[in-house]
Amino acid sequence: MAPAYKLIYFPVRGRAEHLRLMFVYAKVAYEDVKISKEEWEKLKPSTPWGQLPVLEIDGVMVEQSIPLARYLAKQFKLDGKDDLERLQADVFVAHLDDLKNQFGTLLREQDPDKKKEILKNLQKDVFPAFFEKLEKRVAKNGFSVSNSILWSDILLSALLEALMIKNILGDDFATKYPNLVRVKDTVFNTPDVKAYLAKRPHTEI
Amino acid sequence: MAPAYKLIYFPVRGRAEHLRLMFVYAKVAYEDVKISKEEWEKLKPSTPWGQLPVLEIDGVMVEQSIPLARYLAKQFKLDGKDDLERLQADVFVAHLDDLKNQFGTLLREQDPDKKKEILKNLQKDVFPAFFEKLEKRVAKNGFSVSNSILWSDILLSALLEALMIKNILGDDFATKYPNLVRVKDTVFNTPDVKAYLAKRPHTEI
Repeated sequence: MAPAYKLIYFPVRGRAEHLRLMFVYAKVAYEDVKISKEEWEKLKPSTPWGQLPVLEIDGVMVEQSIPLARYLAKQFKLDGKDDLERLQADVFVAHLDDLKNQFGTLLREQDPDKKKEILKNLQKDVFPAFFEKLEKRVAKNGFSVSNSILWSDILLSALLEALMIKNILGDDFATKYPNLVRVKDTVFNTPDVKAYLAKRPHTEI
Repeated sequence: MAPAYKLIYFPVRGRAEHLRLMFVYAKVAYEDVKISKEEWEKLKPSTPWGQLPVLEIDGVMVEQSIPLARYLAKQFKLDGKDDLERLQADVFVAHLDDLKNQFGTLLREQDPDKKKEILKNLQKDVFPAFFEKLEKRVAKNGFSVSNSILWSDILLSALLEALMIKNILGDDFATKYPNLVRVKDTVFNTPDVKAYLAKRPHTEI
């Protein structure tokens, strides 16, 4: 029998949306618990690391959104057909994570002029170098790893959506990186995901 | 038959030492190729992402040192006895990686005064909060996840060694976090690892 899943996070996409999308894509039932900051202060001491999201798996709370996604991928058979595909999906996700870590510097910078400079540098050098390599890989493989949708494709889709909503990628992104956008569109146009997105409340992040 | 492994990296510990330690600990043969910056410039265009380390698995080059460690852990049966242990090992490694990413800000900062300030903040707030949580977990579990040594314990050992060599953790680290140091000492005192360390050339990083 499938375990009982309860996802606990704030009422935003943030670091949990890729998990929600995985549940929806795989048609697996889960409880999507969205808590306020006040509720979080009360819950925090009982969580394993004092951070969200947390996934309860049959009552056991586990933290860390990427490891949780990898675990779900295995349960949902979205992790690849053999160890080498699993490795390649992991590698793809690690690259996405490296990119997100570049944002950390941007978010931690307090000076608005320096912030602008860091973003300009990301948009001029870091993003193109990064997305060109991902685009090549996806163009060659069909999706991130093979011609099937794996968890790494769902994580790419969630990341692209977040960056597009924040207008960080620029208007010509779809022209420059058609295969990356195709992956996202394919994931987002599967009937279950499409229905989920149509009902999802609007949030800033 | 086990695949032929060839690890390619610079002649330093850096981002590859945990992989070397895993091969040694698991008594698995591999080719440890250490290249110069000049050789790297020539090799770079033929690597999958233009970064090192790269592991050749039966002639196929794969990048990203944490996914590679996870792959080897599975091959070497150092990944845990079931999916929940595998998840918990992943979670532990993700925390180590979060800590390493805090260093990114330190390394990217050019201003020496600001650099000092960032390090002071890491040592005063970030490290204690982080290591206390890891210490508690290890005290409870025996090692990072259970009473057996997994890949997450080897990665912890490599990280602690790197931070201790750089004198970043302070003299009272072993007193404050005895269980973390016990994990590292246990890993480093296994006969194969001990023999490897005794012969390893000294490097700064």
